Amino acid sequence: MDETSFKLLAKYLPSTYVQQAKDARNTTNFLFNQLLEKGKWPEEGWSERNIEILLDELASLDSNNFLKNHGVGEREARIASSLVAKRNFHLGHGLGRSGDLTEVQPKAAGSSVLYQLTNDLARDVLRTLGVPDVKACFVAPLATGMSLTLIFLCLRQQQPKARYIIWSRIDQKSCFKSITTAGFEPIIVEPILNGDELVTDTGKIEAIMKQMNPELIACVMTTTSCFAPRACDDVETVAVFCKIYRVAHVINNAYGVQSTKCMHVIQQACKKGRVDAFVQSTDKNFMVPVGGTIIAGFDKSFVNKISQCYPGSKEYKTLARERKHLFQLLKEGLAMIASRFGLRVLDTPGNSISIGISLPPVKDPKLLTQLGSQLFLRCVSGTRVVSNLEIKVINGHEFRSWGAHHSNYPTGYLTAAATIGMTAVDVEQFLKRLTKVMESWSTKTIPMVLPSLTNGHDGFTHLLTSDHLVDQESSVI
Amino acid sequence: MDETSFKLLAKYLPSTYVQQAKDARNTTNFLFNQLLEKGKWPEEGWSERNIEILLDELASLDSNNFLKNHGVGEREARIASSLVAKRNFHLGHGLGRSGDLTEVQPKAAGSSVLYQLTNDLARDVLRTLGVPDVKACFVAPLATGMSLTLIFLCLRQQQPKARYIIWSRIDQKSCFKSITTAGFEPIIVEPILNGDELVTDTGKIEAIMKQMNPELIACVMTTTSCFAPRACDDVETVAVFCKIYRVAHVINNAYGVQSTKCMHVIQQACKKGRVDAFVQSTDKNFMVPVGGTIIAGFDKSFVNKISQCYPGSKEYKTLARERKHLFQLLKEGLAMIASRFGLRVLDTPGNSISIGISLPPVKDPKLLTQLGSQLFLRCVSGTRVVSNLEIKVINGHEFRSWGAHHSNYPTGYLTAAATIGMTAVDVEQFLKRLTKVMESWSTKTIPMVLPSLTNGHDGFTHLLTSDHLVDQESSVI
Amino acid sequence: MDETSFKLLAKYLPSTYVQQAKDARNTTNFLFNQLLEKGKWPEEGWSERNIEILLDELASLDSNNFLKNHGVGEREARIASSLVAKRNFHLGHGLGRSGDLTEVQPKAAGSSVLYQLTNDLARDVLRTLGVPDVKACFVAPLATGMSLTLIFLCLRQQQPKARYIIWSRIDQKSCFKSITTAGFEPIIVEPILNGDELVTDTGKIEAIMKQMNPELIACVMTTTSCFAPRACDDVETVAVFCKIYRVAHVINNAYGVQSTKCMHVIQQACKKGRVDAFVQSTDKNFMVPVGGTIIAGFDKSFVNKISQCYPGSKEYKTLARERKHLFQLLKEGLAMIASRFGLRVLDTPGNSISIGISLPPVKDPKLLTQLGSQLFLRCVSGTRVVSNLEIKVINGHEFRSWGAHHSNYPTGYLTAAATIGMTAVDVEQFLKRLTKVMESWSTKTIPMVLPSLTNGHDGFTHLLTSDHLVDQESSVI
Amino acid sequence: MDETSFKLLAKYLPSTYVQQAKDARNTTNFLFNQLLEKGKWPEEGWSERNIEILLDELASLDSNNFLKNHGVGEREARIASSLVAKRNFHLGHGLGRSGDLTEVQPKAAGSSVLYQLTNDLARDVLRTLGVPDVKACFVAPLATGMSLTLIFLCLRQQQPKARYIIWSRIDQKSCFKSITTAGFEPIIVEPILNGDELVTDTGKIEAIMKQMNPELIACVMTTTSCFAPRACDDVETVAVFCKIYRVAHVINNAYGVQSTKCMHVIQQACKKGRVDAFVQSTDKNFMVPVGGTIIAGFDKSFVNKISQCYPGSKEYKTLARERKHLFQLLKEGLAMIASRFGLRVLDTPGNSISIGISLPPVKDPKLLTQLGSQLFLRCVSGTRVVSNLEIKVINGHEFRSWGAHHSNYPTGYLTAAATIGMTAVDVEQFLKRLTKVMESWSTKTIPMVLPSLTNGHDGFTHLLTSDHLVDQESSVI
Repeated sequence: MDETSFKLLAKYLPSTYVQQAKDARNTTNFLFNQLLEKGKWPEEGWSERNIEILLDELASLDSNNFLKNHGVGEREARIASSLVAKRNFHLGHGLGRSGDLTEVQPKAAGSSVLYQLTNDLARDVLRTLGVPDVKACFVAPLATGMSLTLIFLCLRQQQPKARYIIWSRIDQKSCFKSITTAGFEPIIVEPILNGDELVTDTGKIEAIMKQMNPELIACVMTTTSCFAPRACDDVETVAVFCKIYRVAHVINNAYGVQSTKCMHVIQQACKKGRVDAFVQSTDKNFMVPVGGTIIAGFDKSFVNKISQCYPGSKEYKTLARERKHLFQLLKEGLAMIASRFGLRVLDTPGNSISIGISLPPVKDPKLLTQLGSQLFLRCVSGTRVVSNLEIKVINGHEFRSWGAHHSNYPTGYLTAAATIGMTAVDVEQFLKRLTKVMESWSTKTIPMVLPSLTNGHDGFTHLLTSDHLVDQESSVI
Repeated sequence: MDETSFKLLAKYLPSTYVQQAKDARNTTNFLFNQLLEKGKWPEEGWSERNIEILLDELASLDSNNFLKNHGVGEREARIASSLVAKRNFHLGHGLGRSGDLTEVQPKAAGSSVLYQLTNDLARDVLRTLGVPDVKACFVAPLATGMSLTLIFLCLRQQQPKARYIIWSRIDQKSCFKSITTAGFEPIIVEPILNGDELVTDTGKIEAIMKQMNPELIACVMTTTSCFAPRACDDVETVAVFCKIYRVAHVINNAYGVQSTKCMHVIQQACKKGRVDAFVQSTDKNFMVPVGGTIIAGFDKSFVNKISQCYPGSKEYKTLARERKHLFQLLKEGLAMIASRFGLRVLDTPGNSISIGISLPPVKDPKLLTQLGSQLFLRCVSGTRVVSNLEIKVINGHEFRSWGAHHSNYPTGYLTAAATIGMTAVDVEQFLKRLTKVMESWSTKTIPMVLPSLTNGHDGFTHLLTSDHLVDQESSVI
Repeated sequence: MDETSFKLLAKYLPSTYVQQAKDARNTTNFLFNQLLEKGKWPEEGWSERNIEILLDELASLDSNNFLKNHGVGEREARIASSLVAKRNFHLGHGLGRSGDLTEVQPKAAGSSVLYQLTNDLARDVLRTLGVPDVKACFVAPLATGMSLTLIFLCLRQQQPKARYIIWSRIDQKSCFKSITTAGFEPIIVEPILNGDELVTDTGKIEAIMKQMNPELIACVMTTTSCFAPRACDDVETVAVFCKIYRVAHVINNAYGVQSTKCMHVIQQACKKGRVDAFVQSTDKNFMVPVGGTIIAGFDKSFVNKISQCYPGSKEYKTLARERKHLFQLLKEGLAMIASRFGLRVLDTPGNSISIGISLPPVKDPKLLTQLGSQLFLRCVSGTRVVSNLEIKVINGHEFRSWGAHHSNYPTGYLTAAATIGMTAVDVEQFLKRLTKVMESWSTKTIPMVLPSLTNGHDGFTHLLTSDHLVDQESSVI
Repeated sequence: MDETSFKLLAKYLPSTYVQQAKDARNTTNFLFNQLLEKGKWPEEGWSERNIEILLDELASLDSNNFLKNHGVGEREARIASSLVAKRNFHLGHGLGRSGDLTEVQPKAAGSSVLYQLTNDLARDVLRTLGVPDVKACFVAPLATGMSLTLIFLCLRQQQPKARYIIWSRIDQKSCFKSITTAGFEPIIVEPILNGDELVTDTGKIEAIMKQMNPELIACVMTTTSCFAPRACDDVETVAVFCKIYRVAHVINNAYGVQSTKCMHVIQQACKKGRVDAFVQSTDKNFMVPVGGTIIAGFDKSFVNKISQCYPGSKEYKTLARERKHLFQLLKEGLAMIASRFGLRVLDTPGNSISIGISLPPVKDPKLLTQLGSQLFLRCVSGTRVVSNLEIKVINGHEFRSWGAHHSNYPTGYLTAAATIGMTAVDVEQFLKRLTKVMESWSTKTIPMVLPSLTNGHDGFTHLLTSDHLVDQESSVI
C-alpha cells in the first residue's frame, strides 16, 4: 500500500483510524530501515511476522515477481511448484552472478540485498561474539569441508607452487578430505598427549615450517572446536609462527562460535600472528538446518578473493513440447523484426534454445549498452546484447570479444532464449517491446527510412492468435 | 494413526465410515509405497498435499523429530526458528555424512531416504528425457561451476600428473573459473565460424590430444546448451576422440535437459565414445530456485567417487551462557557416573564443549560398539565411543587409532558435548540413560562389585533440582 | 506410511534405523491414541508439528481428500483456492448436518471426529478450571450474542407462552440485543449501588418472579465477567430463586473462564440452585480469533436440544459454463443407464442443477438403502436415494414421504447434481460406478433379462472422448 | 518499505535497479488501489502471493499487530498459538462490533476494511452473475439455516404480530428448522405434481394470503436450487402475489448462484414483484469450506437491519495465575496514579478482572471523550471512559447513563482490565502512558497544583523491577 491507498482507505474508515494505521506502518518501516542502514544484529529478535514481511518486500524487488515482467533468458527463476515457491518466499535467483557470490544480480535486486544484509549481520555477529577485529565475511552455500577446499583452492591461485598443507591432526573425515580434494598433500602433525589431553605440537609445526621451502606450503590448518580429549588447537602460537615464516593460516572454527573461548583465541591469534581465514558452520552454531558456513577473515581483499573463486513427467513432456513450439514462434517473430529493421536472424541450426539477431555496426559501444538497458527498463529480462568489442581478463587469461565465444565474431547481436516454463505471452510481449525499443533506438544507428506498417498493427498479436496460439493453449496444463 | 487409532475412532464414528477412511488411507499409502519401491518419476504429478504428507512422514524418521530424543552431540539439527523449521519441513540434518553425500546419516533416516529417492527420481528423469544409458547420478547442493570444479578435483585424484583441461570456448565466467579454481590450466579451443554459427573445432581438439602426453590432460570439457550463435558442441565427435586418446570427457549440459536435441547428443556420445560425467543445473531445467545440479555419468563407480569427493543476540547470549552452565552440569554428572563405575572423566581443560569419560579395557572391540548402539537405541544421539583400535585408510593415508586424533591414545572413551540449543532435560536424560546402559554393560566388562546407591535414586534429578536448575530455567527464554 | 512402507525402507536404510524410526512413529501414534481415547486436555501442550500431523491425519478421513473420490452432490467440499485449502488444513465440510451441529457428517468422518474431540476437550477444560459438575458442552460457530439468542429460541420451543426475560442490567449492546433479536421483551433489573460497586438486585428479581406467571418468563439472564464498577452478578442467589420459582437461568460467562472466581460461582450456582446454560467466548478466554463460544450446561439433554436448534469471474464464468455442459453430459449418461435398466430420467425442466432417475418399485425399503450405501462404498458421494416411504416428525410436524418434497410422489428415485467445481472425470466415474452397482442391484429388483452391450464397453468413455470432452477440456483452466 | 527504505537500498544496489524495483512495487500498489477504489470483482484472478500481501498489509492496520500496542481490554485479539495466528493471517478481531456486523471496529481497521471490501465484492459478484438490481448484501458468518432464522427474527421485529411463515415445501431439515427455531409456525404448501416434476402451488399460496390477515404472516419462503424432481420454485409469481398482498418474501437461493437460471428468476421476481431478501451459501457456490452465506436484498435499509440483528492446561494455569498477579499490579499502579491526581480507584471487590478509576466532574462531556482518544492515539487499547451522561435507545428501550450499567452512577470513570495473555510490559506501559495523558488532561479539569514526584521517576518501573517482576517472569513460559 502507498499514499494513494491510505487516501482510499478514507472510504472505509474514519480518518483517525487511517492516521493511526499509518503511524503503525511507519513503526514497522522504521524497523526495516534501521536494519538496512546499520546492518547490525538487532538487540531484540524480530517476530516471525516481521521477518516474513521483510522477506516478502525484498522478494517483490526480484524480477520474477514483477507483475509485468517477461523473461526470455535461460534462467528466469520460474518456479514450477507453488510449494517450492512458498518455502523460498518467492526468491528464486540464488546468490551472486557467474561465480562471484557477492556480485549484484540484476534480475534479483531483492535477493542481492538480502545476501549483502546477511553477510553484514554475520560479520556483526562474529564481532559481537568475540572477534571484534574481523574485517569481512560471507555466508557460503557450502558445507564446512567444501568451504575449506574452496579456501585451499584460492590459496593455490596465490601460490601456484604450493603442494602441502600442514595439518594438526583431527579425526574428522571431511577436514582431511578438504585437503586431498583440493589436490594438496597433508603433512600430518600428531597432537601431544598431555595428561589426558591432546594438545597441539607447536614445536613440530614450527620445525616443519623452518625446514621446508615456504613456497611449497599452502597453509597450516588448525581446529578450535573438537571432540574431547583433543583440545582446541593452540592457534595463537601457530599464528605467531605463520607470521614469522610467512605461511598462510586457516582455522576450522566449526562449532566454535558458541564458545567464548574459541572466539577469543581466534581474536588473539589475529592480533599477535597471522590468520588468513576462519570457517564456521551455520547449522552447528546458529541452529539452522545443515548446509552452510561463514567464511571470515581479517583481510577484506583475501575474503573477497575466496568469494570470487566460487564457480558459480507428463506435464514436463508437455512443457518440453511447448518449449519447442515457442522457440519457433520466437524465431519467426525475430525474423519479422529483423526484416523490418534491415537486420537478420543469425543462422545457428546447432542451437535449439537460444536465438541471435544481428545488430548494425555502431561507432560508440555505449549505444549497444543502451539497447540492453532500454529493454531491461521495459521489464524484459534475459536478453543479451553482445558488442563484439569487449576484452576481458580472467585469472590472467585475456579473452578478446568476451561474451561472443570467439575472438573475431563478424557482428554484434542480441540473443533471446526459449526455455522451459516460458509462455506465449512472454514471447508476444518481448516481441512487442523489442519493436518499440528498436523503433527509437534504430533512428540513432540505422541510416535508412523504414516503411511504417500499412495495417497499423504490430503483427505479433496476429501471430499469436493464428493457429500457433491454438496449438499452444490447448497443450498447456 | 495406526491400527489402534482406527479402533478408537469407533468411539466417534459408525464402523462403515471407519472402514472407508481406512481404505482411503491405504490408497495414499499405496502411492507412497509405489514410489519407494520403484523410484520412478510418476506419470501423474502428485498433489501438494500428498507431497507434504510424504515429507512429514519422512521427517518423522529423523531423530530431531523423535518425541523422546535427547541429543548430546555437536550437531543435532536443532532449529531455532519455527519459520526455518517449517520451510524445511523439520528436516534439519542435510545430506550425507562426513564428506560422502550418499552415505546414510544415522540420525537422519528420513533425510537419507529422501536423498536416495531424489537421486533415483533424477536418474529416471534423465533416462526418460533422452539418455536411457545413464547409470548413476546424484543431486549436488552446488551451483554448476562448483560442480564442475568438484569433478575436475576428482579427476586429479585419479590422474595426479594432469595439469590441463581442453576447453571448447564458451563465454560463461563460471565455466572458465571452474577450471582455474580447480587448479588446472585451460587449453582454449576457439570455435570455428561456420556461416553465422560457431561450431566446435574438433580438428583442433584432436590435434591437441594427439600431440600432448595424455597423462597431462585432465579432460576435455564441452558444452551443449549455450547462447546463440554458438552451437551445441559436437560432443559426439569429441567423445569418439576422447575414447581413442584415452582422455576424460566432461559435458556441461547446463540447461540442456529441456532440449531433446541436447539429451540425444549426450546419449550418442556415450554410445560411440567416452563421456565421464555430464552436469545439469536444477533451476534452469526443473524450475526450482537456483542452487543445485545433477551430476550424472555412465560409470557408477566414477559417479560415486565424485560424490565422495564432496568434503562434506540477546537471546543468543543467554543461550551461550546457558551452554556454559550445561557443560558444567554435564561434567559433574559424568564424574558421578565415572566414580560409580570405577572410571574417570578425562582431564581436558583445553576443550570447553566436549567431554570424555574413560572406558575400561576390553578384549573384544565389539563390546565398545555395543555400548554406542545401546545408547542410540535408547534415543541418545551424539555420543561417540572411541575404541582406540581402529585403523583407517583415507585417500591412501593410513591413520592408526582413527577417531582418537592420535596414534597411541592410552584409553578408549566415550564423549558427549554441550552445544548451543541443548537443554537441562537433555543432560538429565542422557545421564540417566547412560547410567542404565552402563549398569548392564559394565557387568560384561568391569570385574568389580558395585555398591548400590543407598538412597535409591540416581542422583541426577537432585542435581537438576538444585540451584543449577534454578539458574538454568530463569535464564532460558 | 504403513507396514509395507517400512519393509520397503529396508531398501534404503539399515534395519536398525528402520526399527528406530518405527518406534519413534509409535510414540507419536501413542500420543494421538491417548487423546482419542481419553478426550482430555493434555498436561503438556503439543508441538505445532504434532498438531498439524493430527489435523492432516483427520483431514485424510474426509471424502474430499480421498484420492479416488468422485462427488456428484451439491456440496462436496471442493475448495477453489489452494490458499484457502491450506489454511483449513483441507477440511472443508464444516460441522454437523442439516441443522444438528453434533451429528456425524458421512462425507466428513475426520471433521466429525475433530468436532467431537473439540467438544470433549472443551468440557474437560471447563471441569478442570472450576466447574467440575458440567455435564455437556459444545463449541458453537457463533459469537456470544448470537449464542445467547440461540439458547433463548430453544427455551421458547420448550415454553411457547414465554414472552419475557429478566435481565440484570449490563451495558453491552449484544447482550441486550440477544434478547430482542430472539423476540423477547426484557425486564430490566438495575443493579444496586453498594459503595462504589454495582451489585445484583436479587430482591427485585425475586419479587418479579413471585408476582408474575412463571410461564411467561423464558429465563433470567445474569452475567459474571464485566467492566468495573459493576460486580459479577450474584448468580448463586439468583440460581436459588430460579430453582424455587421454576424459572430457567442462563449465565453469560463471557470472559469468565480465565477467572477462578467466575468459574467458582457458576459451580456453586449449579449445586445450590438452577443453571440451564452458561456461555463463554472462545476468543476472550482461549486467545483465538473472534468468532465462537462454548455453550455449556448441567443437563445433557438440554444442551443437546440447543445444538439441534442450530439451523444449520473470468474463471468463474468459465466454470459456470462448464457446469452447464456437465449437466448435459450427466443427463445423457443417466438416460443411457436408465434405458438399459428399463428405468427413466425424471422430466424436470425446472431444475437445472439436479437430475433424478426413477427406481423400480421394491417390496423391502432396505433394498433402496443398499443401493445408496453401495455407491458410497465405491467412493461416490453426493447421490440421494429417495424411497418415497419415509415418515418423519420434526418439531411436532409430521411429514409423509420426507425427502420427496411431496406426500405422494409416484416413484422412488436417485438424484445426482452437476455443481460448480465438478469435472468430466467425476461424471464419467460416477456413471461407470453406477452402472456397476445397478448391474448387481437390479438382479434383486428388476425381473427382466438385460441384453449385454454388444461392443463390450460401457459407453461412457466414448461419451467423454467425443466432442463433448474436447469442448470441456479446452474450457477448463 | 517506504521512501526512506528505497533511499537506503542505494547502499546495496545500483540506482537503476532501485528505480525498477520501485516501479514494480507501484504496479502492485496500483492493483491494490484499484480494488480499494472500485470494489469490483477483478477480471483476472490475483496470484496467491498478491492476495497474501494484501492480507498482510490489512492485518498491519489492526492494533494487535502494532509494534507499540499495549492492550488493557478484555478483548485484544491475543492469539496463543502461532499456528492459529498464521492461518488467520494475524487477523484476530473478527467482524463488526457489539452485534452490528458492518460497524467499523476501532481496534481492527484492517479487518473492518477487509469485511467491507468482501461485501462490496460479493455484491459485484451477484450483479455480474445475473441479479444486476441487487442493492446491498453482506457475508454472514452463519450457515444457511441460521441465516434464514436471522432474517425471520428481523421480520418479527418489524411485524410483532406475525406468527406464520408460508413455506413451499422442500425437504431439507435446516430450511424447516429455520422457521421453527425463529419461533414461527410453518404453513406448509405441498408442491403440485406436474408430470415427473414438482412445481410450486402458487394458487394455494395466493389463496392463503387472500384469506389470512397479512399481519399474521411473517413472510413466504421459496427455494430456487433443490434436488430433482422438485423444480426451482416459481419465485416470480410468488413475488407478484407478495407485492399485491403486502407480504414479505424470502428466497433460499442456497446453491443457485452457479446457475444462470436461478439468478435470472430472482432478478425477474424483484422487477415484477416483491423480494425482501435472498440467501446463498458461500461453500456451495464459491468453493470455500462450509460455514457462511451471502444475505442480499433490493432494499439497502432492510439488509442493514438484518446485519444489525446479529447479536453479535499447565501453561493455561500458569497464565491464569499470572493474570491474577497482573490484576494486583494494575490495581496498585492505578491507585498510585489516582492518589497523585486526587482521584480514587473504585472499590469493586466483586469484580476480579476489570478495575475502574474515578474521573473528576467535567462540564463538557467532550473532555471525557478526549481522554479516551488520547490514550488510543498513544496505542493504548482496551480502556473505557464512561461519562455517565449518555442516553441511548436500543430497539425502543431507553437507557439512561448507557455504559454505566446503572441509571444514576455517581461518577464518571475509566476502566482497564487484566485478562489472560496480558503481560507485565502491557501494564507498565499502560500506567506510564496514562500518567502522561493525565498530566496534560488534568490541567484542563482538575483545579489543583500537583506536587512533582520528588525522585524524578514515574514509579512504575520500580514497581516492575521489585519482587513482583521476579514472580512474574519466573512463572511466564
